[in-house]
Amino acid sequence: MTHQALVDQIKKKQSFLCVGLDVDLAKIPAFLLDYDDPIFEFNKRIIDATKDLCVAYKPNIAFYECHGSKGWEALEKTMNYIPDEIFTIADAKRGDIGNTSHYYAKTFFEYLNFDAVTVAPYMGVDSVTPFFEYENKWVILLALTSNKGALDFQFTTDIKGEKLFEKVLKKSAEWGDESKLMYVVGATRSEAIGDVRALTPKHFFLVPGVGAQGGSLADVANYGWNDDCGLLVNSSRGIIYAGNEEDFADHSRKAAQKLQQEMKLVLQEKGFV
Amino acid sequence: MTHQALVDQIKKKQSFLCVGLDVDLAKIPAFLLDYDDPIFEFNKRIIDATKDLCVAYKPNIAFYECHGSKGWEALEKTMNYIPDEIFTIADAKRGDIGNTSHYYAKTFFEYLNFDAVTVAPYMGVDSVTPFFEYENKWVILLALTSNKGALDFQFTTDIKGEKLFEKVLKKSAEWGDESKLMYVVGATRSEAIGDVRALTPKHFFLVPGVGAQGGSLADVANYGWNDDCGLLVNSSRGIIYAGNEEDFADHSRKAAQKLQQEMKLVLQEKGFV
Repeated sequence: MTHQALVDQIKKKQSFLCVGLDVDLAKIPAFLLDYDDPIFEFNKRIIDATKDLCVAYKPNIAFYECHGSKGWEALEKTMNYIPDEIFTIADAKRGDIGNTSHYYAKTFFEYLNFDAVTVAPYMGVDSVTPFFEYENKWVILLALTSNKGALDFQFTTDIKGEKLFEKVLKKSAEWGDESKLMYVVGATRSEAIGDVRALTPKHFFLVPGVGAQGGSLADVANYGWNDDCGLLVNSSRGIIYAGNEEDFADHSRKAAQKLQQEMKLVLQEKGFV
Repeated sequence: MTHQALVDQIKKKQSFLCVGLDVDLAKIPAFLLDYDDPIFEFNKRIIDATKDLCVAYKPNIAFYECHGSKGWEALEKTMNYIPDEIFTIADAKRGDIGNTSHYYAKTFFEYLNFDAVTVAPYMGVDSVTPFFEYENKWVILLALTSNKGALDFQFTTDIKGEKLFEKVLKKSAEWGDESKLMYVVGATRSEAIGDVRALTPKHFFLVPGVGAQGGSLADVANYGWNDDCGLLVNSSRGIIYAGNEEDFADHSRKAAQKLQQEMKLVLQEKGFV
């Protein structure tokens, strides 16, 4: 998907919501466990209930991998079920030496046909650039994550006063522009989002951490906004586990709708729609 | 596997060789493509030809994932085929927020029954510690990698003069001791291996980069040795693609044997065997 197609979708749906498909068999409604493929059955209903409210879906690959080949089948079916116009993100946090990253790119961009994959920066340039060889496909690089452990290394300050996440942003922006590169920027560090925006004014941010992890949508919009909106705000548990009975998807729809309405207000305030 | 069981195996086999199973359908002998599962067929023959010469196997997960559920089946079969006494490493470079890392641990330690998994440190403590909940299972944390991109971030020096990889070593050694934590330390940076050894005297290192990437076994042994040997030296392409005809496994055996003999000399020089 192109940058412009994503922006168009945000305008059309008045939403910059990404729904995280972190499907945990211990948390989905029990009646689904009687189906042949409970993961896919769950996703199908979540997608039906939310596809007009969100612009992206983000399956978290760990939750599929842990079921081995069965989990991969559920992921493949889910990818085939998601409507083409919706942006798809493999939350996989991959990254390895060049010839290996090449195969990760093949997996997510060719085999599963995702639009984007999350990538970890620790191994540097040759672990990231193989993903850029695909046109209209995206790397979403970890910059500033929403978890507690982000403080361990990401804020390490070098002798020039530059923090590690700032260095990751500056270096990686030399490797790929805003047509193929986004950043993961956690909602739980709202002021730092402004620092990230100052360094990368044109790139989209994938923002986890609103909801269960405590980040605020207003802060994200305040610090992270750019001329193209520039934000994909993810919610996983808050939406997909909003209900736990036969009518769970209705609850998911309501939870997604609530966020979409808040996003619509932001988009209106910014004069974007 | 326990630390002691690994050390015992090194003594018994007079080897600290790890064979990397990076199976690329474009590189394996063409006649294998007629089999139902060429990846497993290839691995089976490589394992039969090398299992008395190496102490570990390291499937690189990217090479399996790129074939989707079929690839995972080949990986499952390969894991079932590897003899129990051999240490198994999922080269997966995973790492995410806690609840996700928990599922990656489940995948590799429970579902696939690997002894160890490689993990990327960028997201910090809660991305690493869920792997430690399993007894006699191992995290192999990226410290100093063998690729060109290692120079981008891993050598970033903070205001106290500490490099990022040193910080990763110091912090992570507080999270897990040498009974459950190893480090990836690339053979291509031989002098730096000495710095890593000084900071983590007791931990095992998984050392890629000998062979195709240009690292030297003598340097690795010189800088990385500890009282328990403390080294697993990986070779992938140099062994598994040593031949390309019907008798390819014989060539793989010879290549593995050459490395094992060099390792035996190191072990003898150090008085370890």
